[in-house]
Amino acid sequence: MHKVNVAEALQSFSEHWQPRIVGELNGQHVKLVKLQGEFVWHHHADEDEMFYVVRGAIDIELRDRTIALREGELFVVPRGVEHRPVAKEKAHVMLFEPAGTLNTGNVRGERTYEATPLA
Amino acid sequence: MHKVNVAEALQSFSEHWQPRIVGELNGQHVKLVKLQGEFVWHHHADEDEMFYVVRGAIDIELRDRTIALREGELFVVPRGVEHRPVAKEKAHVMLFEPAGTLNTGNVRGERTYEATPLA
Repeated sequence: MHKVNVAEALQSFSEHWQPRIVGELNGQHVKLVKLQGEFVWHHHADEDEMFYVVRGAIDIELRDRTIALREGELFVVPRGVEHRPVAKEKAHVMLFEPAGTLNTGNVRGERTYEATPLA
Repeated sequence: MHKVNVAEALQSFSEHWQPRIVGELNGQHVKLVKLQGEFVWHHHADEDEMFYVVRGAIDIELRDRTIALREGELFVVPRGVEHRPVAKEKAHVMLFEPAGTLNTGNVRGERTYEATPLA
């Protein structure tokens, strides 16, 4: 039981696309991640995933449209929906999703990263 | 499927201690709430509850200590743990908790409010 300062937690790592776990509740994880550039298209078969932009801006590309998120905006990608996060500039994002959710969902490859608790 | 601008959503209502639902995922609700003054002591028997301060500052009083949260800080109150949120000044908070979680937990009274979706 300890509080988390989100900005300070984000300063403690530099890698992009590698979510760090900062909280757990009700079987869900709260993660922080830094984004820059284009990610891979993927979906999560059984997990809804929330993106909340802490700093900067991102696009969540869906197959039929793009959700442009600025700082202080959130969006839930429902399970099964293909998406690709894109950050034209560096962005910081808070994720809410079930524990065990893989960043690349159904696609395993070099961008796949098993989220680790923040030290 | 639509995005939520947290600041704009918070401008759309003025009541304190009455959470509004702005997102749902994996059986959890994302809520926004305005706090001012002292709430009631309560616990949630089966629900962990996350507080993330969007604006201002709050204290989460526990029976053995107080968690002081500033803007951009989060804290998870585990199920069963008695707590009392206090906002010396107006504060805006994002909550993340299971759908159906009651604001006053095990204590029903005049502060009890069934969270409603934001119009």
